[in-house]
Amino acid sequence: MRDVVEIGLGKTAQRGYHLDDIAIVPSRRTRDVDDVSTAWQLDAYPFEIPCVAHPSDATMSPATAVALGRQGGLGVLNVEGLWTRYENPTKILEELSTLDEEAPATRRLQEVYAEPIRPDLIAERVRAIREGGVTVAVRVSPQHTLALAPVILDAGVDILVIQGTLVSAEHVSTTDEPLNLKEFIADLDLPVIAGGCTDYKTALHLMRTGAAGVIVGVGADEWSTTDTVLGIRVPMATAIADAAAARRDYLDETGGRYVHLIADGDIQTSGDIAKALGCGADAVMLGEPLSLCEEAPGMGAWWHSAASHPKLPRGAFGVAGEPLGSMEKVLYGPADEPDGQLNLFGGLKRAMAKCGYRDVKEFQRVGLVLDR
Amino acid sequence: MRDVVEIGLGKTAQRGYHLDDIAIVPSRRTRDVDDVSTAWQLDAYPFEIPCVAHPSDATMSPATAVALGRQGGLGVLNVEGLWTRYENPTKILEELSTLDEEAPATRRLQEVYAEPIRPDLIAERVRAIREGGVTVAVRVSPQHTLALAPVILDAGVDILVIQGTLVSAEHVSTTDEPLNLKEFIADLDLPVIAGGCTDYKTALHLMRTGAAGVIVGVGADEWSTTDTVLGIRVPMATAIADAAAARRDYLDETGGRYVHLIADGDIQTSGDIAKALGCGADAVMLGEPLSLCEEAPGMGAWWHSAASHPKLPRGAFGVAGEPLGSMEKVLYGPADEPDGQLNLFGGLKRAMAKCGYRDVKEFQRVGLVLDR
Amino acid sequence: MRDVVEIGLGKTAQRGYHLDDIAIVPSRRTRDVDDVSTAWQLDAYPFEIPCVAHPSDATMSPATAVALGRQGGLGVLNVEGLWTRYENPTKILEELSTLDEEAPATRRLQEVYAEPIRPDLIAERVRAIREGGVTVAVRVSPQHTLALAPVILDAGVDILVIQGTLVSAEHVSTTDEPLNLKEFIADLDLPVIAGGCTDYKTALHLMRTGAAGVIVGVGADEWSTTDTVLGIRVPMATAIADAAAARRDYLDETGGRYVHLIADGDIQTSGDIAKALGCGADAVMLGEPLSLCEEAPGMGAWWHSAASHPKLPRGAFGVAGEPLGSMEKVLYGPADEPDGQLNLFGGLKRAMAKCGYRDVKEFQRVGLVLDR
Amino acid sequence: MRDVVEIGLGKTAQRGYHLDDIAIVPSRRTRDVDDVSTAWQLDAYPFEIPCVAHPSDATMSPATAVALGRQGGLGVLNVEGLWTRYENPTKILEELSTLDEEAPATRRLQEVYAEPIRPDLIAERVRAIREGGVTVAVRVSPQHTLALAPVILDAGVDILVIQGTLVSAEHVSTTDEPLNLKEFIADLDLPVIAGGCTDYKTALHLMRTGAAGVIVGVGADEWSTTDTVLGIRVPMATAIADAAAARRDYLDETGGRYVHLIADGDIQTSGDIAKALGCGADAVMLGEPLSLCEEAPGMGAWWHSAASHPKLPRGAFGVAGEPLGSMEKVLYGPADEPDGQLNLFGGLKRAMAKCGYRDVKEFQRVGLVLDR
Repeated sequence: MRDVVEIGLGKTAQRGYHLDDIAIVPSRRTRDVDDVSTAWQLDAYPFEIPCVAHPSDATMSPATAVALGRQGGLGVLNVEGLWTRYENPTKILEELSTLDEEAPATRRLQEVYAEPIRPDLIAERVRAIREGGVTVAVRVSPQHTLALAPVILDAGVDILVIQGTLVSAEHVSTTDEPLNLKEFIADLDLPVIAGGCTDYKTALHLMRTGAAGVIVGVGADEWSTTDTVLGIRVPMATAIADAAAARRDYLDETGGRYVHLIADGDIQTSGDIAKALGCGADAVMLGEPLSLCEEAPGMGAWWHSAASHPKLPRGAFGVAGEPLGSMEKVLYGPADEPDGQLNLFGGLKRAMAKCGYRDVKEFQRVGLVLDR
Repeated sequence: MRDVVEIGLGKTAQRGYHLDDIAIVPSRRTRDVDDVSTAWQLDAYPFEIPCVAHPSDATMSPATAVALGRQGGLGVLNVEGLWTRYENPTKILEELSTLDEEAPATRRLQEVYAEPIRPDLIAERVRAIREGGVTVAVRVSPQHTLALAPVILDAGVDILVIQGTLVSAEHVSTTDEPLNLKEFIADLDLPVIAGGCTDYKTALHLMRTGAAGVIVGVGADEWSTTDTVLGIRVPMATAIADAAAARRDYLDETGGRYVHLIADGDIQTSGDIAKALGCGADAVMLGEPLSLCEEAPGMGAWWHSAASHPKLPRGAFGVAGEPLGSMEKVLYGPADEPDGQLNLFGGLKRAMAKCGYRDVKEFQRVGLVLDR
Repeated sequence: MRDVVEIGLGKTAQRGYHLDDIAIVPSRRTRDVDDVSTAWQLDAYPFEIPCVAHPSDATMSPATAVALGRQGGLGVLNVEGLWTRYENPTKILEELSTLDEEAPATRRLQEVYAEPIRPDLIAERVRAIREGGVTVAVRVSPQHTLALAPVILDAGVDILVIQGTLVSAEHVSTTDEPLNLKEFIADLDLPVIAGGCTDYKTALHLMRTGAAGVIVGVGADEWSTTDTVLGIRVPMATAIADAAAARRDYLDETGGRYVHLIADGDIQTSGDIAKALGCGADAVMLGEPLSLCEEAPGMGAWWHSAASHPKLPRGAFGVAGEPLGSMEKVLYGPADEPDGQLNLFGGLKRAMAKCGYRDVKEFQRVGLVLDR
Repeated sequence: MRDVVEIGLGKTAQRGYHLDDIAIVPSRRTRDVDDVSTAWQLDAYPFEIPCVAHPSDATMSPATAVALGRQGGLGVLNVEGLWTRYENPTKILEELSTLDEEAPATRRLQEVYAEPIRPDLIAERVRAIREGGVTVAVRVSPQHTLALAPVILDAGVDILVIQGTLVSAEHVSTTDEPLNLKEFIADLDLPVIAGGCTDYKTALHLMRTGAAGVIVGVGADEWSTTDTVLGIRVPMATAIADAAAARRDYLDETGGRYVHLIADGDIQTSGDIAKALGCGADAVMLGEPLSLCEEAPGMGAWWHSAASHPKLPRGAFGVAGEPLGSMEKVLYGPADEPDGQLNLFGGLKRAMAKCGYRDVKEFQRVGLVLDR
């Protein structure tokens, strides 16, 4: 069944599939769209839509984290981003939004992110989100988790997102004391989302650290250059399905602990969201699609966190374009363009209805066709 | 034989093929093109060509439904389109034909289709077609079938087309009384064509409702965005062949009831028509190809019904271009361009002749090659 | 081994491969290029290169047929082309060479080819080639073979090419007396090349008619539209290999009659020639590549015979560009551009040398890789 | 396992994969990037990075060979290039760097390479490199090895690179005395790198000649036209893996002689380097990527050796663009563009770290996914 291909004598590769390679197959009854629910719950936190923000400064400010929470999703602020390096990053964001295709954008990103992180600003940003009355989540990199965790926890977040391009349950270092995720999470009182990861084994190991959610994928989109820089390209349909197998095995091994899968990569449209969930994801992480909201702090510009790496940037800068509409319109419509970038979760709901499913968990069993 | 692929651990997808992936293989005798027949008959209604119009306002007015009937095909008017919302939609059609690539065309479609449907106009339009002396067919959506059927039937149509993007034999609703297709059809005296559907099971269930014809596919073409909005993309070669298997099994189960398959999607050229029939279709539904006729009410513009959906439009607006020629030239030639958009059924006839087949039913057995 | 794919329930397609899908694999010794021979012989006629002209008026006039013969290949004049319809077609050819992308070129082709064929001109053209001192070959379509054969044979040709898009050994007609190829060839004293064909069975049947050579393929290139008009697209690597199997089986069945395979389609560069021979062809038919010679009567323009069909043209008109150089330079170099369109047979020779083969027949066993 | 496909009846092809078809899969621990080593050693010569220069005049002058050596790689000067034909080729290089897309660049290359090779200049160039204090390597073609070897050896090189597009262990010639690689190498005191080759058998035979390193591939990149001219296209992932199998078998057969594989082709970015090593290469040969260094003698222009062939050039001329930065920046960063062309070996190091490997030899076992 599983396609293991001998690419040369004695050297094998597993075949992997991208979301673009597959499509959903309606093959049962149909259902009224109003009878369909997109609700999602992580630990004690309920959401109207299975939507987590990718923690880029282009989309997540304290204000938009609140806005997304109010719209029913989960905002995530990067505590290693501009908002914790600058008292007021608005001027920088404005400048970035004016860069055009000719500008040395990567160099400018490297410069503005060279400013050190200020712990006091972390506390201030978290407070601002909490005051918005929504679930508070922030992202920290595995490298800085031990250093920044005390500040973050003191500030009072609900959910901690430990996210690097790739996170393993076992990081090896001869110089620094590496983060032991399992011990770290065991000592915490709050749910942790960790990742990205790209395969069954790493996903399973991350689940065994006690994480409540695991991020699948490296956040790749058309601006990402992880492929050309590192040779790493994640076929998301396969990565999600493999991680879902890890979820099942871990559920069995623990007698019932369900770890949520959050798909991060190759998701641009409502159709992509439907396909990611159909492969087995519980929720999706949205990056660039949210940069198209009027409220986006990047004012239409888009960049990944890795795009500002001082020595090895991975991610092109997406120059600002016209926003598509309000966050509400992007998430819930009505759409007035037919390309799947508006009414993202209305589109998901209709896809579920046309396939006859009532909720996201059921929809993970939808039929798929491979046609590319 | 059938390719079921494990795209990830424990998650499978069936491999599907598009019409573009395949080609016809001549592998027997050749035959004189004048000895080949493209005749088709649905229930009591004979046609010279296996051609059903996709019921878009861009191609089907009462007048062009008559024109297509006189040319030997089956015109289908949408009773939920502009002709039943406006006494005289000509001005609107003219305006739409002047929209350019920059215009907010989707928004304009949403506006003009917001006008309510007038039952009196349904009766008037049907009468106009009937007076043309051709087989009368209209399209209604499954949602509005129960409400509009009395008016339609009173008006006196020959064939009823119940068509949504996807139609199942069992629609579930907690709020409205859903359409029970089987009971509805049993009570009717006229043949019903129902669809679209995309797989064996749904096709078989639609056949069991008593439909005389089943539409295979969702009418996708290069303007369609069902893929990006809903994640649904139909590999037509596979969908047609699977539905043809349902036709065989239903024929056996009923001891002889033959349900016609009408392929709707990915058909732009005479070569595509030949391939759809070669996969097992009895007839093809033509959308955009007919918008290139001089007679088309859209005056060269093209849009799907779903392109005007108020909240989730699915289908880009194709701005008007120069028509290719009269409907007769489009259907029967002579072609003076070599790209397969003219002389659609002359091209089909020649393909059949080069493969040595005499009629459409025989041609369904033609050899195929998969080369992409 | 052979890939038969179930594209839908109960409907199969054979997988086919294009020349572009494969490449040659050097895997043995290497050899001096000067020790390699590209000689080819058909019946009593020896050639320095395995090169037959595709009989388009764009490349073959009586003068260029002679020129190609002197260069070591086989020129073929179309007796249903402009040279047998007009006393002096030069003006028409000049006019065609001035058409640009905007011109209604197909319509103009249809007009100029509407002129009737004059038997006296057939005789005159054949005489002109014979006087050039080369092997004389002309092409006639199967439809006109019975009518034109007496004139052609009287005129004294060496090789007769009976070529249509597709030729079968058994053509069925209820109106005309169809050509019985087997009887026709049996009555002739000269070798016949017949085709095109695309599969094992048709190739075998054509061999059984007594043909000395069989054309494999339908002459498709980037200007051809057989695909969009008829749904017929020939994966040449597979078609050639299948016909080579027919050649082997026919050799066995006859105890030694060797029928030559002439590949006609998808051959633009020296690399393509090497791949076609590597799949099992004995020679290649060159169309558009010869239109790039300075001597070409089309003066750089290019069109297929089928491009002028009065009702169903299949083939776009290639507007004239700058010629690449003399016929000698195109065939034998030296090349001063690196794209494989110059020094066609020098390139073939070098490919054979790098794979260690001495002659074309040996080279048919070269290793292949499938990488697309 | 290994995919042997019957492309036609009785004709098979092996399926091959390009580096673009695959990606690296992180599936274990992660590791600190500072704990990773990219060191490589060939015979007695240690290198900081597994980087060998492709011996094109566009990138390798005596000065840049020294510069690359000082940066930790292995420079290779072509003794059949401009530096051994001209006392001072700078003017020619300058002229070439000013050619634009319209220039007849191939013809100009053919002209400037028509100048004869001067043995005295070989000695002078070697001396210049030796004086730079780095490992001295030069490239000679198999055809000229016997003639030029005495001069080269007298001049005192450390490593001899015998490289043609394709080199076999057994070259057959009826006119010249062919090079017997085995005897030639046996008589030498210095390590020889030989190639290119593309398959298991040729690689094994080259190893048996006593070569210390074998070049895999024909140096193809987007400027190469070996494919269109010769029909030869090398799927590098497969070619490297097959050669790695030959390395294992030869290691076993000799009880421990380890021959290094140097991958030459389809390597543009740090991601490509990682993938080539992941397939089993010990080092990579860099051509065009080094032409982007400020120091490159071609001043941004790029051409292969085969691009100047007098009769059958294979390789388009890449007109000069803006350099990306110093050689140090290209090799070690910091990158200020995210497309994988800068910080080539920093990118490799990070890829290794994210997959948890410490050195290049270990990294050859990394997991691969096939996703195209």
